[in-house]
Amino acid sequence: MFNKFNIKPLWETSKTLSAVAQGFKPADIVITNAKLINVCTREVMDNTDVAISMGRIALVGDAKHCIGDETKVIDANGQYIAPGFLDGHIHVESSMLSVSEYARSVVPHGTVGIYMDPHEICNVLGLNGVKYMIEDGKGTPLKNMVTTPSCVPAMPGFEDTGASVGPKDVAETMEWDSVVGLGEMMNFPGILFSTDHAHGVVGETLKANKVVTGHYSLPETGKGLNGYIASGVRCCHESTRAEDALAKMRLGMYAMFREGSAWHDLKEVSKSITENEVDSRFAVLISDDTHPHTLLKDGHLDHIIRRAIVEGIDPLVAIQMVTINCAQCFRMDHELGSITPGKCADIVFIDDLNKVNVTKVIIDGNLVAENGKMTTTIEKYQYPEDAMNSMHIKDKITVESFNILAEEKDKVTARVMEIIPARVGTYERHIELEVIDGKVQCDTSKDVLKAAVFERHHETGKIGYGFVKGFGIKEGAMAATVAHDAHNLLVVGTNDEDMALAANTLVECGGGMVVVRNGQVLGLVPLPIAGLMSDRPLEEMAEKVERLDKAWKEIGCDIVSPFMTMALIPLACLPELRLTNRGLVDCNKFEFVSLFVE
Amino acid sequence: MFNKFNIKPLWETSKTLSAVAQGFKPADIVITNAKLINVCTREVMDNTDVAISMGRIALVGDAKHCIGDETKVIDANGQYIAPGFLDGHIHVESSMLSVSEYARSVVPHGTVGIYMDPHEICNVLGLNGVKYMIEDGKGTPLKNMVTTPSCVPAMPGFEDTGASVGPKDVAETMEWDSVVGLGEMMNFPGILFSTDHAHGVVGETLKANKVVTGHYSLPETGKGLNGYIASGVRCCHESTRAEDALAKMRLGMYAMFREGSAWHDLKEVSKSITENEVDSRFAVLISDDTHPHTLLKDGHLDHIIRRAIVEGIDPLVAIQMVTINCAQCFRMDHELGSITPGKCADIVFIDDLNKVNVTKVIIDGNLVAENGKMTTTIEKYQYPEDAMNSMHIKDKITVESFNILAEEKDKVTARVMEIIPARVGTYERHIELEVIDGKVQCDTSKDVLKAAVFERHHETGKIGYGFVKGFGIKEGAMAATVAHDAHNLLVVGTNDEDMALAANTLVECGGGMVVVRNGQVLGLVPLPIAGLMSDRPLEEMAEKVERLDKAWKEIGCDIVSPFMTMALIPLACLPELRLTNRGLVDCNKFEFVSLFVE
Repeated sequence: MFNKFNIKPLWETSKTLSAVAQGFKPADIVITNAKLINVCTREVMDNTDVAISMGRIALVGDAKHCIGDETKVIDANGQYIAPGFLDGHIHVESSMLSVSEYARSVVPHGTVGIYMDPHEICNVLGLNGVKYMIEDGKGTPLKNMVTTPSCVPAMPGFEDTGASVGPKDVAETMEWDSVVGLGEMMNFPGILFSTDHAHGVVGETLKANKVVTGHYSLPETGKGLNGYIASGVRCCHESTRAEDALAKMRLGMYAMFREGSAWHDLKEVSKSITENEVDSRFAVLISDDTHPHTLLKDGHLDHIIRRAIVEGIDPLVAIQMVTINCAQCFRMDHELGSITPGKCADIVFIDDLNKVNVTKVIIDGNLVAENGKMTTTIEKYQYPEDAMNSMHIKDKITVESFNILAEEKDKVTARVMEIIPARVGTYERHIELEVIDGKVQCDTSKDVLKAAVFERHHETGKIGYGFVKGFGIKEGAMAATVAHDAHNLLVVGTNDEDMALAANTLVECGGGMVVVRNGQVLGLVPLPIAGLMSDRPLEEMAEKVERLDKAWKEIGCDIVSPFMTMALIPLACLPELRLTNRGLVDCNKFEFVSLFVE
Repeated sequence: MFNKFNIKPLWETSKTLSAVAQGFKPADIVITNAKLINVCTREVMDNTDVAISMGRIALVGDAKHCIGDETKVIDANGQYIAPGFLDGHIHVESSMLSVSEYARSVVPHGTVGIYMDPHEICNVLGLNGVKYMIEDGKGTPLKNMVTTPSCVPAMPGFEDTGASVGPKDVAETMEWDSVVGLGEMMNFPGILFSTDHAHGVVGETLKANKVVTGHYSLPETGKGLNGYIASGVRCCHESTRAEDALAKMRLGMYAMFREGSAWHDLKEVSKSITENEVDSRFAVLISDDTHPHTLLKDGHLDHIIRRAIVEGIDPLVAIQMVTINCAQCFRMDHELGSITPGKCADIVFIDDLNKVNVTKVIIDGNLVAENGKMTTTIEKYQYPEDAMNSMHIKDKITVESFNILAEEKDKVTARVMEIIPARVGTYERHIELEVIDGKVQCDTSKDVLKAAVFERHHETGKIGYGFVKGFGIKEGAMAATVAHDAHNLLVVGTNDEDMALAANTLVECGGGMVVVRNGQVLGLVPLPIAGLMSDRPLEEMAEKVERLDKAWKEIGCDIVSPFMTMALIPLACLPELRLTNRGLVDCNKFEFVSLFVE
């Protein structure tokens, strides 16, 4: 089953590989004169050759005898070669790119495989969405290993999503070729309180002998973390402190050190291995969420390795963390993660061990990228109609849609969500607001904006209303269909006219992110695939996102990645107060609360 | 599938484990105040508790809240606790004990699981023999993980065995609960020359996503070793030099450092990790073949860990080598090999980190041994009739059966196998022997003995004759049905009368090993189970083997473990000259040769 991430399974190639190693048959490719980064023994081995046949490695060492007339010889000229990089936890949707475009963006940076958790699209389109992303990936050389989304919806009963996934669904997906495990088990309360659903989705994965990936974001590392791991969860990327990561590794959990576009955990979390004398085999580097401009400007795992080196991690250890450690986490190290005989011929050329500048990438024995560019074509995939047409809002959105009524009053005290820049939490604030003609007004003098969430999956007509503080916006409005995790249509603004314009702009383009002011669109990132992704190129998307970022600034917001912070407004599993399409949620008590304090 | 090596699979226990960790339900057992040997991070963690429920670990850390009225509290009193030891490669038959008696012998030494390759019994009884040994193991707490014998017969065409195993048979066994992989792939020439049989048995194992264990005994570490590993072989226990083991680890192969009763590789092989700055995750300690007296006097993996420490391996690394490294080799580290939540509660108490004196052993949450003795009863298994009655020799063996004829000659020049003490090889020597009355005589003055191998599986009547040099025997004769790998009846001696007595003594007792002199039995080890094992206790067997050893000395042999060396006389895959029941084999050219040089 796991063998599908190669041209042919080993048992169909082994006779040839053994013959090539012996010199009885010529290799397809021989790499000569390389400095091999040996992740098995954590050494650099000078002057090493690698013979490749049928997409796999036949020999590592002296390969002169493997060269025939037809053999392609690649002289490494003393450059380093490392196993292809693996990203152990990634939501492709965060890049706003299709899987094929994502592949084009990351493969030249040395990424040969990703463990993709298509959690966002699954909330919109259900398992069909997962299937589409698998199909999308098939036209690329990137090994697209899928973990089935575990928590769809994220907060059952508190929001309307496009679909839900239960233990039976998970069991079904475990039969799929591409599925290697379960996506991040965010529902740690479900595990800790022994619910059927949580233990069911985990259990179906374990029954299939596959890997359960985790999400344990509490700072608690005692009984809660133990109870979570005891259920069978094998890894977690939610450590923000060194002690979190260290506690996880000590409990046999793979600690995935995250360095994404918005969450920069590496600085702190690296200390778990740089400041303690520990075996680092349970440490892995991952990206989780990466935006187009990060991919374009910084790169992918090559960037994260560089960051790890800056934080004091030995370069060879850092490379183990994106190769063999990750492969062992997924119990796929017999196929991936090292340059050793029989493994997939996934090889990255690096010209400097500290700069990690990737010059060539080989996947399954094919040279697929060189000097930052793909050298093979990627087949584009056309997402089906339901994916390209995912805006299902019941009533036409008008200015009136944004009226928040409080009849026969002059003033009300509202429960307001106060966002915290660069943090995922919010505070609940109680703020007095004016009522004019029975309509509650937002108040930019108090930095209080109006917010609305429109259900967009099943035309239920459900709309949640609230107020939000902390963006510093003085004029205009913003809207997004990237609104975790249900991805309903979220609108935030200073006036109803601009809010209606923002909302309708997204309805028209099939979803995305937008900033408007005084009836004008300042920045728009159309995301027509499920309202989450685009089929446009990385460069174009990075430019659009940059324009959007600028538009946020123009209307008064100077916090970093404000659209990320805004996208978390509906995520009711985070503290303290959140707004879904069903209303305002107290996320400490997990109950709906009224918008106004009596 | 792999989950069967526990009372219940994790998915049936996870709700309870999570609850116990939280303190919502009491644990079955809590170990308090232990020094935890953390093999994940390679640290000792003082003052650690472990909570156990349903045979698995629920929590590691502070477990006060897990203690209820019914909870059994085991105060470790500051002793070390380590994960239960795993032996990654073992032939139980070499111990001459039944599996249940073997378990009784090794569990008190801290062994909780073995990867058993029942290669010997399979040569006698086929897959039925494997099944019997699996059944035998079921009455014990020892986790008896089976690798299907890969090379039965070891030398097709050169010997008659009781059975043969092909790719289809291997495929069938991969469905068996207890089978976790393929036994040592001794037929490395078959791999290197791409034969269907060799790649077939390997391929069927890979298809089942299980582990292929290896046997690569050549000192060559270049194209041959690469070609062998490229076929999918994951580990090898045949390194005798540090550079062999290092080369294997560098090529992503688990190097199993062997310290058995007869083969002591550890002294040399340890240097691969003590004299090189390498990651040791691919290093494992195993026993391969252990005799009763070694188990009784030295112990099992506890002894091998002590030996490793003497050779300069850090005690924590040595313990990793019999726990997590071994579990990762078999991709079973989600179940075994560490004291972390969710894993099998297999825990060894040790009172001193350098002496590795095991004081308590817990398997699946049950205290099974204490102070060197089992504390639970082991169910005895009665081997079926065909196992207890495996001597199928066509004609009654008489003095005449040993006549080697050379009519009309006075003298002949014979091809003689010269054994090399404490080494597995032989030399071919050409020695002149006298012929009296048409019968070739052995010649103790030249240290040349007569040898015969009687087919004993299918009453074919085939007998191979030869001469052997190097034992130094002056009188009497020896016989054995432990005669690798076909385990026919091997007889060696100075005179035909004693040879006939030796042979018939074994025929009568169903197989074993014997030394006779002048019509008297000096030492006898009856092995009625397939002619390989006994159902008698370890202590009795150790005494019998000691008596046999003494008998060898009494008739003039002073080499170490002479019966081991004798047992290799028919093993035609070792150099240089061997004798099977079909005749004399030139093991460099792999062809039969005549007994006499023309």
